Amino acid sequence: MISFENDYLEGAHEKVLEKIVETNYIQEPGYGNDSFSKEAIAKIKEVIDQPDASVYFLSGGTQTNQVVIDAVLKKYEGVIGADTSHINVHEAGAIEFSGHKVLTLPSKKGKITAAQVQKYINDLYEDSNYTHMVTPGMVYITYPTEYGTLYTKSELEALSRICKSFNIPLYIDGARLGYGLVSADADIDIKDIARLADIFYIGGTKIGALCGEAIVFSHQYKPQHFNTVIKQHGALLAKSRLVGVQFSTLFTNNLYFDISIHAVKMAMKIKKAFVNKGYQLYIDSPTNQQFFLIDNHTITELSKKVKFTCWEKYDEEHKIVRFATSWATREKDIDFLIEQI
Amino acid sequence: MISFENDYLEGAHEKVLEKIVETNYIQEPGYGNDSFSKEAIAKIKEVIDQPDASVYFLSGGTQTNQVVIDAVLKKYEGVIGADTSHINVHEAGAIEFSGHKVLTLPSKKGKITAAQVQKYINDLYEDSNYTHMVTPGMVYITYPTEYGTLYTKSELEALSRICKSFNIPLYIDGARLGYGLVSADADIDIKDIARLADIFYIGGTKIGALCGEAIVFSHQYKPQHFNTVIKQHGALLAKSRLVGVQFSTLFTNNLYFDISIHAVKMAMKIKKAFVNKGYQLYIDSPTNQQFFLIDNHTITELSKKVKFTCWEKYDEEHKIVRFATSWATREKDIDFLIEQI
Amino acid sequence: MISFENDYLEGAHEKVLEKIVETNYIQEPGYGNDSFSKEAIAKIKEVIDQPDASVYFLSGGTQTNQVVIDAVLKKYEGVIGADTSHINVHEAGAIEFSGHKVLTLPSKKGKITAAQVQKYINDLYEDSNYTHMVTPGMVYITYPTEYGTLYTKSELEALSRICKSFNIPLYIDGARLGYGLVSADADIDIKDIARLADIFYIGGTKIGALCGEAIVFSHQYKPQHFNTVIKQHGALLAKSRLVGVQFSTLFTNNLYFDISIHAVKMAMKIKKAFVNKGYQLYIDSPTNQQFFLIDNHTITELSKKVKFTCWEKYDEEHKIVRFATSWATREKDIDFLIEQI
Amino acid sequence: MISFENDYLEGAHEKVLEKIVETNYIQEPGYGNDSFSKEAIAKIKEVIDQPDASVYFLSGGTQTNQVVIDAVLKKYEGVIGADTSHINVHEAGAIEFSGHKVLTLPSKKGKITAAQVQKYINDLYEDSNYTHMVTPGMVYITYPTEYGTLYTKSELEALSRICKSFNIPLYIDGARLGYGLVSADADIDIKDIARLADIFYIGGTKIGALCGEAIVFSHQYKPQHFNTVIKQHGALLAKSRLVGVQFSTLFTNNLYFDISIHAVKMAMKIKKAFVNKGYQLYIDSPTNQQFFLIDNHTITELSKKVKFTCWEKYDEEHKIVRFATSWATREKDIDFLIEQI
Repeated sequence: MISFENDYLEGAHEKVLEKIVETNYIQEPGYGNDSFSKEAIAKIKEVIDQPDASVYFLSGGTQTNQVVIDAVLKKYEGVIGADTSHINVHEAGAIEFSGHKVLTLPSKKGKITAAQVQKYINDLYEDSNYTHMVTPGMVYITYPTEYGTLYTKSELEALSRICKSFNIPLYIDGARLGYGLVSADADIDIKDIARLADIFYIGGTKIGALCGEAIVFSHQYKPQHFNTVIKQHGALLAKSRLVGVQFSTLFTNNLYFDISIHAVKMAMKIKKAFVNKGYQLYIDSPTNQQFFLIDNHTITELSKKVKFTCWEKYDEEHKIVRFATSWATREKDIDFLIEQI
Repeated sequence: MISFENDYLEGAHEKVLEKIVETNYIQEPGYGNDSFSKEAIAKIKEVIDQPDASVYFLSGGTQTNQVVIDAVLKKYEGVIGADTSHINVHEAGAIEFSGHKVLTLPSKKGKITAAQVQKYINDLYEDSNYTHMVTPGMVYITYPTEYGTLYTKSELEALSRICKSFNIPLYIDGARLGYGLVSADADIDIKDIARLADIFYIGGTKIGALCGEAIVFSHQYKPQHFNTVIKQHGALLAKSRLVGVQFSTLFTNNLYFDISIHAVKMAMKIKKAFVNKGYQLYIDSPTNQQFFLIDNHTITELSKKVKFTCWEKYDEEHKIVRFATSWATREKDIDFLIEQI
Repeated sequence: MISFENDYLEGAHEKVLEKIVETNYIQEPGYGNDSFSKEAIAKIKEVIDQPDASVYFLSGGTQTNQVVIDAVLKKYEGVIGADTSHINVHEAGAIEFSGHKVLTLPSKKGKITAAQVQKYINDLYEDSNYTHMVTPGMVYITYPTEYGTLYTKSELEALSRICKSFNIPLYIDGARLGYGLVSADADIDIKDIARLADIFYIGGTKIGALCGEAIVFSHQYKPQHFNTVIKQHGALLAKSRLVGVQFSTLFTNNLYFDISIHAVKMAMKIKKAFVNKGYQLYIDSPTNQQFFLIDNHTITELSKKVKFTCWEKYDEEHKIVRFATSWATREKDIDFLIEQI
Repeated sequence: MISFENDYLEGAHEKVLEKIVETNYIQEPGYGNDSFSKEAIAKIKEVIDQPDASVYFLSGGTQTNQVVIDAVLKKYEGVIGADTSHINVHEAGAIEFSGHKVLTLPSKKGKITAAQVQKYINDLYEDSNYTHMVTPGMVYITYPTEYGTLYTKSELEALSRICKSFNIPLYIDGARLGYGLVSADADIDIKDIARLADIFYIGGTKIGALCGEAIVFSHQYKPQHFNTVIKQHGALLAKSRLVGVQFSTLFTNNLYFDISIHAVKMAMKIKKAFVNKGYQLYIDSPTNQQFFLIDNHTITELSKKVKFTCWEKYDEEHKIVRFATSWATREKDIDFLIEQI
């Protein structure tokens, strides 16, 4: 049965696979010292227009968040994030496992604001007991968010400004970065991300790769001995070529963004069709994840024909349902889905 | 200047001090093996009417919470608690430092309900991604709460029942246990605490001791190798006699409760006087902490005469202010305070 | 320049790559629920003849050691291992990062003995301060060892017996398991490993895979909520199919062992040639790593022609040098190497 | 029965107790802000002649080691120490619990040398895999050592020099600092300790106090937000006055050193008597712990009359036995002991 359950259902983009096969017998050193990783780093630095940035590759998103947050925070610091954020909800406590508290702010459609961050930190330092409280050492946001929504440029600029004012980094989790940046609603590009974030990662697992995320540190926040920290977290791939080759390919000839465009186009087709047929949007997402509010009976019927995710219970009669597209989604499968509703 | 800032302003009750002096030159083994600790354990087990319980002594409250929660939780488990709870707000991330997430529920007057716990856990296990979420392994409450309020017997029974239904322990932080149990509003005694909680601690630091908290485990939840765990956390006192002697004294001839009665009586006198003079209660607390909503001008004036704590900002014009009494509060100081308002 | 620096210089065996390509567009659930992982698990359970075992896949060796050791040990326990073991020397403190001490025993040629383990634990429990010492909760060995050597069947049986007598698991790190088991010196097969170890892992990264290690738990030691623990460590791959497909292929038609045979054959050819030309073995290794004691001048000359690893300084004039082969080593490269010496 | 088992058998020196009683009802803020702690800090800074040093008080030795080492080390760093050191053997893995590896060097009579440290670090950075190894971030020694022995001034100067050359701090655990400095064999005073160590602690628990250790940081190594770090470790006493009063008293009129002199005098009397009667020294200790090699029969007989510690088994016929004295040891008890041998 055709599935729209998530955006990691297939393997890798065929150009990525071809390159893995083509380079297979070239002998390369490991642990990040392979020439493919170096190539990929050079390409990413060019695309983001940050020649002084530092780029590292890890395998997956939760791992990346844990390693980055733990490496950058001081021991007594916590990370500010949305209550709905991935690090707070769906990482099985990976941040706390490494000793840090997630300091949550109530979110709207997955987003938090600069004003919230400012108030949180100001209130904390006004508290007579603030030395008994977790010191905020970073702000974490997702672009796009877990609900597919996007921060505007001015929202990001405000967050960036407030972080600078408190001398803490802004970290953007870009697990689905491509699907956000190519959206019609996006008013920024990857250069803006690199300029406004102090740290961010470019998601590969959900956009064309078998595995892999690319972490970018602006000069100021590059952790010392970062390869040792990665190794200490059990996150250093021996055959780093695997991720290096993939990112080198994805960042050749705009592939990463081109395949993102396809995914978002497919998602918009789903949205339009559902809305036209009277389905209710739960959130109006301009990216590859579409959330609808659907009654239980319809869910049961539709489940017999395609796979999708029941995100959470809304009330006794309805659930929030998610359809996800990806670089690999076939238009004919979208058409099939639309026929069923 | 006389202070009502908190309940740990003085040293120890004089009977406690006398006993420390009296036993000073008796040679005793350390690390929990001294005869005074054994004496104190026997007395506590008698008072709580739980001959099979296990009792241990630590130095302070945050330490106790960290050691107990870390020792009892499995590695992938978190602890459910009120968003306002001490472990979530004022322990500098001590729980997360030991690797565990605090899973917060919105509280009312410092309290959470069995229904909230039930819904939280049920919702979690209904989530399709629940294996990526922190498993709830304990419920933590405070008696009295951080706002001086008390759970009723039926509220505790409901929490106890729901914990049993999910096969996780109910842990009661009794940093101010005495001040709660002797309150006119309390409908339980320490035997009820010991029956309804799977784990609890009896606070000494705030009630008559120089330092020290007594942890009580019902048979089922006693951690293995607990002294090693305490040592591993850096929390095992060499001269365990120090805490042993103090608890042995506090649990002789009802001293712990008698001195608690005094503190609450003094707090009620403050409450009555403030209310009579038209001050507004922020929370109607029946225990040793009193919270008022006071305008900034009055606060400034009163601060010139006595010390108290500005708990948090309420609005631009008002603050929430706390006056705390303790076993050591002198009635003449209360009278002085009342004259100033 | 041809390299013999390590056994992870190339990508994956061509059959593995073919299967990755072939299955690329099949939609599969993630996080270990893909059908390829299930297939691979079934094949491994058959090969080891343990229908009740539990099998999980992770990305790399250090990650596997950290996750397994942390998941299986109780919080106050440490792991016994050789002073030269990978977890003690070359994992950047990954075990300590997760809170556990490595309890080291002096090794001979990378190996420790049952008698050493027995004496260590007996001495510890005879110590009057043993509750202040780290409780041994596991024995960790490598097969083959970091020096390419092998435990005999009777040595493993003795270790297994002693672990059972102390009621702790024996964990075998099989990063190079294939290269050990196919050695002419091996007197055991993988069924023996599965019978004598309580936990072990089958290394893929060094033997034919792009990445991936297969953890096997005997029924008794399977950790609770293990997928949550893996996620908490940031080690759960979204596209688990990547490792699943690879192990499924490696354990089809004996591929894993066949390619291991090639690597060891190449290593034996190196050993024979070096010994014939008068080079001194540092350790007589029967597996894919060969260690020689070579003078600095010869090292400098040889370095101009092929790549290899200077393992450690022996004295002012000599170094210990390692040549590693793998499933990918070409015989003509071995011949070229031999011509140079 | 009179005991020489350890140096924490009694409570506190009577002057310390008197001061606790005398100041009992003075209201003081907590968590390190009490005036007694400030007084004690001023006195210690004067005695060590380091007006810019930072001084903090904790409850016990293992706690102090854990908090200091974790606060000062970067996350990927470990601490170099003797294999016999307290942090490596008798702290139940407290250092590893906080995420750091103890990097052990073989010791002689409890001591390590600057040459060993230099070789260890140099070898590590020459290792081709050093980024996969734990980075040494501190050197830990004890003065006196766990075996009662003392470093000479020139040994300490060499260690200090080598630490400076690697830009890492030298940390001296002074759990028994007084008993070392007053020894006839000591060629340094506390000003030398403060000059040669970057961090050290002055032990109170074993020398006159009920509990408490004073940590001294030279300006350069004072951790940021240290009170928050202490709180995060569960180690911040609410009634910090308890330790403040004690150290203020111990550092008034040379009390700390005067009572140390008594302990060492008593220990020397034991040593002389045992040696005269033909007992064999295991280690020639010039401080308050005396170690003898005694046959099992004699041990059994002597155990019927006085208490002491069987430190470890030497061979089938002999054990290493420890007699400890302290500030509280009565001369008549020493005389009684001597009569028994």
